[in-house]
Amino acid sequence: MKTKPYTDLFARVREKRPLVHHITNYVTVNDCANITLCAGGAPVMADAPEEAAEMAAIASSLVLNIGTLSAAQIESMILAGRMANERGIPVILDPVGAGATRFRTDTTKRLLHELEITLLKGNAGEIGVIAGVEATVRGVDSFGLSGDPLTIARGLATTLGITVAVSGATDIVTDGKHTLLVENGHSLMGSISGTGCMAASVTGVFCAESKEPVTAAAAALAAFGLAGEKAAAVSHGPFSFKTALFDELKNLTLQDLAAGARIRTP
Amino acid sequence: MKTKPYTDLFARVREKRPLVHHITNYVTVNDCANITLCAGGAPVMADAPEEAAEMAAIASSLVLNIGTLSAAQIESMILAGRMANERGIPVILDPVGAGATRFRTDTTKRLLHELEITLLKGNAGEIGVIAGVEATVRGVDSFGLSGDPLTIARGLATTLGITVAVSGATDIVTDGKHTLLVENGHSLMGSISGTGCMAASVTGVFCAESKEPVTAAAAALAAFGLAGEKAAAVSHGPFSFKTALFDELKNLTLQDLAAGARIRTP
Amino acid sequence: MKTKPYTDLFARVREKRPLVHHITNYVTVNDCANITLCAGGAPVMADAPEEAAEMAAIASSLVLNIGTLSAAQIESMILAGRMANERGIPVILDPVGAGATRFRTDTTKRLLHELEITLLKGNAGEIGVIAGVEATVRGVDSFGLSGDPLTIARGLATTLGITVAVSGATDIVTDGKHTLLVENGHSLMGSISGTGCMAASVTGVFCAESKEPVTAAAAALAAFGLAGEKAAAVSHGPFSFKTALFDELKNLTLQDLAAGARIRTP
Repeated sequence: MKTKPYTDLFARVREKRPLVHHITNYVTVNDCANITLCAGGAPVMADAPEEAAEMAAIASSLVLNIGTLSAAQIESMILAGRMANERGIPVILDPVGAGATRFRTDTTKRLLHELEITLLKGNAGEIGVIAGVEATVRGVDSFGLSGDPLTIARGLATTLGITVAVSGATDIVTDGKHTLLVENGHSLMGSISGTGCMAASVTGVFCAESKEPVTAAAAALAAFGLAGEKAAAVSHGPFSFKTALFDELKNLTLQDLAAGARIRTP
Repeated sequence: MKTKPYTDLFARVREKRPLVHHITNYVTVNDCANITLCAGGAPVMADAPEEAAEMAAIASSLVLNIGTLSAAQIESMILAGRMANERGIPVILDPVGAGATRFRTDTTKRLLHELEITLLKGNAGEIGVIAGVEATVRGVDSFGLSGDPLTIARGLATTLGITVAVSGATDIVTDGKHTLLVENGHSLMGSISGTGCMAASVTGVFCAESKEPVTAAAAALAAFGLAGEKAAAVSHGPFSFKTALFDELKNLTLQDLAAGARIRTP
Repeated sequence: MKTKPYTDLFARVREKRPLVHHITNYVTVNDCANITLCAGGAPVMADAPEEAAEMAAIASSLVLNIGTLSAAQIESMILAGRMANERGIPVILDPVGAGATRFRTDTTKRLLHELEITLLKGNAGEIGVIAGVEATVRGVDSFGLSGDPLTIARGLATTLGITVAVSGATDIVTDGKHTLLVENGHSLMGSISGTGCMAASVTGVFCAESKEPVTAAAAALAAFGLAGEKAAAVSHGPFSFKTALFDELKNLTLQDLAAGARIRTP
């Protein structure tokens, strides 16, 4: 594996400190803000229709997360998303709980239809639901899909003309043509709320400084997963793991990423 | 004390991983999500009227918490609560700050009137206000009530035909006929925001797998309190206590609960 | 430096445990609640127009923070602020992100116009924008202002007839006539989201028990900064720093404040 594209991007992120505008849920929003900082970005959260577009106009990327969706938020997502599209900055969509309710499924489809999404990042169940295959989402948890996640992700990416990331023991990142698999991470990441949301924020930071979403998302997921591996080694349970996860991502060096990233082609 | 009913329930919870739907405040919502995970459940938060009922339709219990109430949330609570009642899943109501403002007091009464609440869990002041005795709530803190909390809780439970839990140095759980007192816990639990909300979430997890709310709530409060005792032993202040509280609840074993639960009849 | 006014106030805060009503953002609200507890106050968050004024009617101070502003919140801020003014309790305004969007800038000006604000606390960029000098705010971060912050803060305080606090490596607190500089703090405070919001909450706690906003804000910022210094000494990264920051503020003694406060006149 050549790690140079990933470490170069990571170095650029830390140098530029891109502003990542979030319209996200109120459950994990603080974690998203702090993980953005630890990854090397600057977070801002602004979801009022009165200012969503204006904030997107000064940001380097936009993260849309539907974890606690409301009608007002959808309006703001559309306004901010259009501004992001106009300016050509990346838009990351995390369709939290798509498949669990019609409101979430329909909103995800609407956002994919009305906006140019750069990266769609979800768990296997969410991605399966959006791809139209049989899949089960209970609350915000994936209970899997019928079929091969890689094939489904590739198909969805091709159909939509976007990059798709599927989180899991092995993360899949694909634009239909180019695919990367990321094997970093630790099972303890599933023991706390919000690691999926945080992963989306970290991809928002990395995509802000890259023209290649597949590379950027893979680098982001590798860095975040690597921090999780290091955190697991020093924690006694979910919350001490969470504490260490932030610390380790902040302290992660280019050398750590070069030595520890496990990114490969299928 | 026979601990078998409590440890059996705890084992069932961990095996089934019940989905607990929350409509709750934005102050402690992340803590509620994470403590649900640590207790053995799966949290989901969804408070838009567009999806509240649909999410309740796939959940195993519903937790309503009025800590940062809004008109839209009340509508969602009614919609989700009706669905929960239709399906026969437990509904837990945490009347945070009832008595501090009319909006909270009136909403609590409305929810108790329009929905079949399984468990009403509050501090002494809140329960006193709802019972109609002289009681003082300042912000979200109880400043006590006039009269014997146990007698008042029993009376309220009988009148409403529900289970009532009163948090305190000794927690009271009663349906009017059967009463259990839980003596687990630690004073440091009062040093952080949200332990009351978290306790309600844990009762939501345990009630999801039980037909006996008094037993379930007592088991939940004992487990949570026991985690607090263990956490206090290794903490240096409120936030390291909070960290340990989550870790200890996650790591709590059936043996720990059997050995450490202090549940008794009055 | 005579520390008695600061330690006397700190002792009074801990004895009285003032109720601090917050109308604040959903990103750092949990941190604001917990830091209020650690400083010696009791937090309450209530932002529904139905109850905002009633909650302000029982509080000892009011903190308004526009970090994730909405139209409904502005209405509640006005209602709660008027009640606070009527009752003569201090109102603290944290104009998070003023200058980044018109919505935030205009709302800040409206609140300053319609309410009697006791203390306006912002970073240099935000204060510069409000003072009408050239200043840059990117998201919620200050990118500085053109001119001398001290002169600008004094001018703004005089014009508005209020106390102004400017956070930075050296914090400035001034009512135009009396000025105090606070040199406590640590660079790690910038590594986590919400230290600015938390600082505003701590000033809310101290102002609640004082008739002298300059003294109260300086004491609050010194205590908070001192906790940051102590936390930095025992942390391994941003989140372990955050954990220690809460613990250290809670554990801070009058002796610590007397020995460690670095408050001086210009």
